[in-house]
Amino acid sequence: MKTERIYLYNDRTDVWLNTYILDTPISMPEGVKRPAVLVCPGGGYFNCSEAEGEPVAMKFISMGYDAFVLEYSTYLGAGTTFPDITQEMPVKEECLYPNNVREIGMAFRIINSNADEWNVDSRRIAVCGFSAGGHNAAMYATNWHTDIISGYLGGDREIYRPAAAILGYPLTDYVYKNKAEKSMPSFVQDFFHKSDLIFLGSENPDQDLLKKVSPARNISDNTPPTFIWATAGDGLVPVQHSIIMANALAEHKIPFELHIFEEGDHGLSLATQATAMSKSQIKADAGKWSDLAGVWLEKRFALDLPDMAPFEVAMAEGRHPGQN
Amino acid sequence: MKTERIYLYNDRTDVWLNTYILDTPISMPEGVKRPAVLVCPGGGYFNCSEAEGEPVAMKFISMGYDAFVLEYSTYLGAGTTFPDITQEMPVKEECLYPNNVREIGMAFRIINSNADEWNVDSRRIAVCGFSAGGHNAAMYATNWHTDIISGYLGGDREIYRPAAAILGYPLTDYVYKNKAEKSMPSFVQDFFHKSDLIFLGSENPDQDLLKKVSPARNISDNTPPTFIWATAGDGLVPVQHSIIMANALAEHKIPFELHIFEEGDHGLSLATQATAMSKSQIKADAGKWSDLAGVWLEKRFALDLPDMAPFEVAMAEGRHPGQN
Repeated sequence: MKTERIYLYNDRTDVWLNTYILDTPISMPEGVKRPAVLVCPGGGYFNCSEAEGEPVAMKFISMGYDAFVLEYSTYLGAGTTFPDITQEMPVKEECLYPNNVREIGMAFRIINSNADEWNVDSRRIAVCGFSAGGHNAAMYATNWHTDIISGYLGGDREIYRPAAAILGYPLTDYVYKNKAEKSMPSFVQDFFHKSDLIFLGSENPDQDLLKKVSPARNISDNTPPTFIWATAGDGLVPVQHSIIMANALAEHKIPFELHIFEEGDHGLSLATQATAMSKSQIKADAGKWSDLAGVWLEKRFALDLPDMAPFEVAMAEGRHPGQN
Repeated sequence: MKTERIYLYNDRTDVWLNTYILDTPISMPEGVKRPAVLVCPGGGYFNCSEAEGEPVAMKFISMGYDAFVLEYSTYLGAGTTFPDITQEMPVKEECLYPNNVREIGMAFRIINSNADEWNVDSRRIAVCGFSAGGHNAAMYATNWHTDIISGYLGGDREIYRPAAAILGYPLTDYVYKNKAEKSMPSFVQDFFHKSDLIFLGSENPDQDLLKKVSPARNISDNTPPTFIWATAGDGLVPVQHSIIMANALAEHKIPFELHIFEEGDHGLSLATQATAMSKSQIKADAGKWSDLAGVWLEKRFALDLPDMAPFEVAMAEGRHPGQN
């Protein structure tokens, strides 16, 4: 396996792409390329949760895909946990929308330009994210073809096209979010106000901006097939975000799959011990999402294998496979 | 993730340990160590199959364990596929038994001496193998405590103790093997005779040696809990090897689990597209073995997590998790 950290900016060390490129076994049929999944961890745009990065990449790696984890622009950066939102947080320009979603486009460009060396199937890259990272991934899935991303970054538009989106407990509708949070506990409201401040530049963004950053309101024919999962018990990001997104995808006839599990609070990641901070985050039901996503993904991302391998042909003919 | 290749001998480059050490997320509770799985690929002691190495390690990595792949002593070494067994193969001393199984002990010693740096739970290391690698793993599981391995390698015997064994379509009884192969196709007989030559030093090993290299005949109280899977359709290594081993474990009251799937030929590895050379090697049924092994392993290898994480306690008390 080839692991590497690639920095997205020459003059910043807080935004990077971690690569996980599987070795090519000598037995792998010639010409077979691996599709890939790009993972965007969540963290309210304050940081990128490590438990929603590498361990998730490992799940897709175990399915035979290459994987990438993007540390996109966040306010606090790597190595931090939950922010103390009672502190002052002066806006940092480089952390504001649309830098965060544009960086997914930059990651696609990097993967494309290394596709031959890495043996990646650059036409089959899924974008995956959780919570705010799910929002960022959904923003990419719905805006990759516009001037915000591919138009801004330049080059062949098709290199930016995601083949699928996988969203875990995402935020998808900021108009709904800013209405719904009014009836939530005050510390949740404080959290979202601060998140709006550091991500959108204001604790009270106007309706036009809220609509612009709502993936569920920006679905088009360019939106890829989308897999969504969430828990009804999510106390931070209401499950309605997933329902609204699924409904919007249905309205636009974009292929999608939705799994809402009854139990589990926010931030379960894989919902197994591979990501859990406590036993309460291990869920036998919600933990099924990644295998469901694997089956769904394989319909689109199946490796291009022959019906029979040369050694099987030889043995079927009674020859020893090592003989020519 | 930290990946590294560690050579086992100063004067040889054909035997190595590949390490896959997961990053420790900042959210991981302090003091939690990861158990690990050491993977021994198969290949008839001619080589180590790459499709039974890294991709299998990735499956265990996706469960939250660290993983290792051992390239033990084989006749042809890395980067080779099926041997042409019609060729002359003069014996190479360094590839003969018991070097191959002793190298698993050397790998355990390396993992133990790096356990603190890698945050590995050195008392919970499983040995896993497939086909000849399954034989090698089973040989280790049944002989680690003897003069062949820990006695020869020296130091505290307990550092060599495997916490579990996971065997995929293994050879477990060489007495049975050398009887059964007489009724198999001639190219299979040729294959096994050559394998005996390069592994045991003779195309017709004596009964004492055959018994010595039969894990099913050497089970003791020091044999760890064992998970075995195979396919009844295996045309190279008869499924009886798995049945004989399971029966021997039952006789000795060693905890074990056995899954025999009806369909599938030899060498399926994960039996998913992550390891398949052809569509015929992808099996919906046999492909369940790794998840079954995961559930079985987690009963012994569960990460030592608290019931609730600090952020959950805070939220349950209505405090924002980032506030002290």
